[in-house]
Amino acid sequence: VSYLTHLECAACGRRHPADVLQNTCPCGGSLLARYDLARLGREAARDALAAGPPSLWRYAPLLPADDPEEAVTQREGWTPLLRARGIERALGCEAVFVKNEGANPTGTFKDRGASVAVTRARELGVKEVVLSSSGNAGVAWSAYAARAGVSCAVVLPVDAPLEAKRHCGLFGARLFALRGPWARAGALVREAAGRHGWFNVNTLQEPYRLEGKKTMGFEIAEQMGWRLPDAIVYPTGGGLGPIAIWKAFEELRALGWAEGPDPRLLVTQYAGCAPIVRAWREGRERPEPWGEIDIIPGGLRAPDPPGGAQVLRLLRRTEGAAIAVTKEEALDAAGELAREEGVLACPEGATTLAGLRRALREGLVRPGERVVLMNTGSGQRYASAFPKAVATLLWEEEGIPG
Amino acid sequence: VSYLTHLECAACGRRHPADVLQNTCPCGGSLLARYDLARLGREAARDALAAGPPSLWRYAPLLPADDPEEAVTQREGWTPLLRARGIERALGCEAVFVKNEGANPTGTFKDRGASVAVTRARELGVKEVVLSSSGNAGVAWSAYAARAGVSCAVVLPVDAPLEAKRHCGLFGARLFALRGPWARAGALVREAAGRHGWFNVNTLQEPYRLEGKKTMGFEIAEQMGWRLPDAIVYPTGGGLGPIAIWKAFEELRALGWAEGPDPRLLVTQYAGCAPIVRAWREGRERPEPWGEIDIIPGGLRAPDPPGGAQVLRLLRRTEGAAIAVTKEEALDAAGELAREEGVLACPEGATTLAGLRRALREGLVRPGERVVLMNTGSGQRYASAFPKAVATLLWEEEGIPG
Repeated sequence: VSYLTHLECAACGRRHPADVLQNTCPCGGSLLARYDLARLGREAARDALAAGPPSLWRYAPLLPADDPEEAVTQREGWTPLLRARGIERALGCEAVFVKNEGANPTGTFKDRGASVAVTRARELGVKEVVLSSSGNAGVAWSAYAARAGVSCAVVLPVDAPLEAKRHCGLFGARLFALRGPWARAGALVREAAGRHGWFNVNTLQEPYRLEGKKTMGFEIAEQMGWRLPDAIVYPTGGGLGPIAIWKAFEELRALGWAEGPDPRLLVTQYAGCAPIVRAWREGRERPEPWGEIDIIPGGLRAPDPPGGAQVLRLLRRTEGAAIAVTKEEALDAAGELAREEGVLACPEGATTLAGLRRALREGLVRPGERVVLMNTGSGQRYASAFPKAVATLLWEEEGIPG
Repeated sequence: VSYLTHLECAACGRRHPADVLQNTCPCGGSLLARYDLARLGREAARDALAAGPPSLWRYAPLLPADDPEEAVTQREGWTPLLRARGIERALGCEAVFVKNEGANPTGTFKDRGASVAVTRARELGVKEVVLSSSGNAGVAWSAYAARAGVSCAVVLPVDAPLEAKRHCGLFGARLFALRGPWARAGALVREAAGRHGWFNVNTLQEPYRLEGKKTMGFEIAEQMGWRLPDAIVYPTGGGLGPIAIWKAFEELRALGWAEGPDPRLLVTQYAGCAPIVRAWREGRERPEPWGEIDIIPGGLRAPDPPGGAQVLRLLRRTEGAAIAVTKEEALDAAGELAREEGVLACPEGATTLAGLRRALREGLVRPGERVVLMNTGSGQRYASAFPKAVATLLWEEEGIPG
């Protein structure tokens, strides 16, 4: 059963009812789901969670679904937190973990937001959703909308990876390919939602996608025995991931369920689309929109991150850092994760390892600290980004050289 | 702790020690791992399994690792068994389930065999493994060998999917591209193993890959409350999957842990490489090698299946059936799984849905029966096989049409 009580505007603090479909506050601020944590703390014990399902729905009391039995789920979340001993040896660190979001049904952490937000949207009567996505969120939403019997429209960049287009199409989503500046996608989605009566589920344009993603924070806490790590390295595009994870920590702390101070947030971005890194370096409160984008196709294509200001606040509050990583560093790091750990990470996810390497060099992380690298997705969909494999050609009559 | 006692030849019945590295019996038969099931039955309770890890290592007593704490694992197995209500409606069935092996770390069920067999091979001193693979097994073994610090050589067909080549390479495997009849690959691997002292881990060339795969059978049983389904539809290449699953059922029955008769085996193959289907129709005891192969790139490329005779015995014993599916039927079924269930299946896995449709039409399965479709892998790596997605082109100044 959910302990959801109301929605609260992150900007003006105004309360809104949670049982009515809403996008944002009239003031323009994004809406946060609030729960009766005092009552939950009295009625439930932290250790009872262990008996829950091996999915993010184990946290149903802290999720917005009225009826979790009817959740739109295919067992997303509760992804492995792997001890990375090979990486520890390579970096001279003592405790590095990889949270492997590639285990999600469509291969990325985007499934979390889609599962929870589609579930809630359907409960509140939504029949069609619309979003813009550089790829992975489009696939996740197409999948969960299909499972829910909800229609889905996705705006992708015209040069989105073939994989994203084909997969969205396979799930029956309506696809729109935007030929023009990607920064315009959010406004287009808002217009379409208004004109056609579709529900806009873009980042921070409705309250429940965040609720799905915050389960990453619950899982990190539970999988580490409720003692929070010292630092979390998160590949950051729109910014919702870190915002959601630290909201989870706030809720756990209010419940008295998590121990240790808040982890420091280390944000990684590609050097070719790094509005948050630039704003952090320049000491700004919000990022300026980024111009020309030069990244590995996939995630982290967020030239005007909707959560930018909130992420910058998190960076200041947790005494974190924002680190830019080149495409080459990301691919090298994906290779290192593969060879050292056997983990098939997406390049975005691998930016966290490249970022950690730099953070160690710059003294932002100490070798004895407990660090979680968020691998936000599987490398399965990214084959063409990886280097060509060396192969020795064999003819049938030959043997295999040593 | 493992209850492994010895190895037994599947052909001549001879016993072999389990603590010595072995490929096959001197008679040429494949070796089966045997356990002290009587003692396990006395010392352990079925329901205690529920407290185990959410991976195939929850069945450690029935697996061959001396020290499961040192297993080469990244949480493979314990994949979701999803109730497929959309498919039930579409087919007029009452109880259809999809076992989604796409949740495994490299995206296919091949991770199971690799995790268990690499673990055991390393325990027995192996430093380098060699195998042939049409793609997915090569990726899985490359990953687990890397994680174990074991070298890996993979023979792929020269026209293997780019994804398979790049991913094997990313994990640091040595790649050999075979330009010549694929039926020759097994012999090449045997030669290379003999010449270079590498350990041959091809299908049924060593006993432990099967042990990893049998955990699919344990999971089906446990996830269905220990009441076995009426039929399992399995996309069959080399044949190890079904052989392993029914070995699991045999062990569960000896333990008194599973209820209900053995499920019927329904094998699916592509019409363009269907040696088992042909042999089944012709009433043969073993398949004849298949000539020209015409399939969707990926799995099920097994023109001379090493487990063919055993699969045909299973088909007779369980009163099953073997069904050929066209490439078009497989892709249509992948689309249906996506749209009805939100499941991203590989085309091989989707042959099971196409096969079930035909089995219902031919009276091989009744609508009231409990059927499990084995989706052997994720569709993430198969984007180029799926149909082109329809996309409406947008310019920045346009709105989104309804």
